[in-house]
Amino acid sequence: MPDADVVVVDRAKYAGNVGSILRHMPILGGVQTLFLANSAHRSGSPYPPYPRSFIKEVMRVSMLQHYHEFEARFCLLDGGAEELMHLLEMLKSRGFALMMLENVEEFEDMPVPTQDRFHYCSIYDKASAIRDVRAPIAFIFGGESGEPMPELFTTCDVGGFIPSHEADHKNANQHEAEECENRCLQRMHSCNLSIAACIVLSERHRLRIAQQHEHARSFLRCTELVDGPLTFAQKGSIWQSYLAQYFQGICACATWLNICGIKISK
Amino acid sequence: MPDADVVVVDRAKYAGNVGSILRHMPILGGVQTLFLANSAHRSGSPYPPYPRSFIKEVMRVSMLQHYHEFEARFCLLDGGAEELMHLLEMLKSRGFALMMLENVEEFEDMPVPTQDRFHYCSIYDKASAIRDVRAPIAFIFGGESGEPMPELFTTCDVGGFIPSHEADHKNANQHEAEECENRCLQRMHSCNLSIAACIVLSERHRLRIAQQHEHARSFLRCTELVDGPLTFAQKGSIWQSYLAQYFQGICACATWLNICGIKISK
Repeated sequence: MPDADVVVVDRAKYAGNVGSILRHMPILGGVQTLFLANSAHRSGSPYPPYPRSFIKEVMRVSMLQHYHEFEARFCLLDGGAEELMHLLEMLKSRGFALMMLENVEEFEDMPVPTQDRFHYCSIYDKASAIRDVRAPIAFIFGGESGEPMPELFTTCDVGGFIPSHEADHKNANQHEAEECENRCLQRMHSCNLSIAACIVLSERHRLRIAQQHEHARSFLRCTELVDGPLTFAQKGSIWQSYLAQYFQGICACATWLNICGIKISK
Repeated sequence: MPDADVVVVDRAKYAGNVGSILRHMPILGGVQTLFLANSAHRSGSPYPPYPRSFIKEVMRVSMLQHYHEFEARFCLLDGGAEELMHLLEMLKSRGFALMMLENVEEFEDMPVPTQDRFHYCSIYDKASAIRDVRAPIAFIFGGESGEPMPELFTTCDVGGFIPSHEADHKNANQHEAEECENRCLQRMHSCNLSIAACIVLSERHRLRIAQQHEHARSFLRCTELVDGPLTFAQKGSIWQSYLAQYFQGICACATWLNICGIKISK
């Protein structure tokens, strides 16, 4: 079974936002762990990156009432930038695509040397890495306190942003003199961290559902199972092996039958 | 110019959630107003449905710093259920589709007489009303305090829910005896109001962007503007009239040129 997606949050400011992402991860499908890092924290410092009260508030908002539930989904990285980079390298070596999520302005303003190499696009773009639902993704959110760590532009594979409606309208027919001011306004109009993360996770969830539908339909067309003379048990067995082969057990058979609009009668 | 979508929130419990929806409406495109109602408030009561401190907190979280900005997007309905129903009828007569957003369990548990008449599906379903981006929608969220008002099932045109990953897995191979307990768990695992609203609005925004791309591409294929001998000014003028005719000025020309991947040089 392949790895599920993970979320990495660097330098969070509000515990409520981190807790809210944890609360919605089980609903929005397929995310296994949230890693909370603080790359501004100096390695070797005796103080942890987040106070104990911060983590308690994360746990409260996450609605994961039992500590073992919380512990199974939440991982604190208190070793500063070094430990964060170590995590990202480890994820990369396991086949994760590292996707940095930021406001579009952060990508436009990125350091010149990386501008040619680093590809970013809207999460709704057909070229977005988010669409490849077979490869696990590490969604990296940062900069709730300050700008994202510069190393992320060289370490991450791709960047993604949520397209803003305001930005579209403001860019239309504007004079260059106004541009600076408008861009400052856009910065103010960015999404809250937990909203942004949940929009990205729900888009990934939607794509996964769509892909399951697509495969279920093409499989049914290929084998003509719907109108064939097979019994339910035979169909189930073929489905099971198909699923095992192509989807490595990500999705339970009952879900598939449900997707295909077929009900199993007992 | 057709009406833009609106959001209706009935019986909100936390001002922060209402404020958060207002904050993200301008980013997630095309929503003009948030109506806040309390259908449990009795008509004729001297007390308003929400205390003044609640509305002040809504305004603070909305980040609409000036009162005229806030007032332009936020409308309080303090006449109880009667005024809410009046609003919904008015919206319906203006051509809005009334879409009720709830947890899937609320739809499954709806009163028997309405079960046959009321259609609901996942917001990602191909049959969902959310996909018709030309007709304005009133997205109605309720029940943060208690169950949704029963009249909504008869007044609203359609229902929509955000499919839950947990629900899929829990339904697989489960015994009927466990079902009740599991469904209670699912209820606990529902989305927070502001997260749910922003996921729905972002899906609508995504569909609108996708449709704009689609139309821009088919228009370009038809007229072969990209490789044609026309000047930019001529192209711009054709585009303008095309936009005026088909999209009634919803979207600025610069956005379209941007969609088509064409840059205007001065």
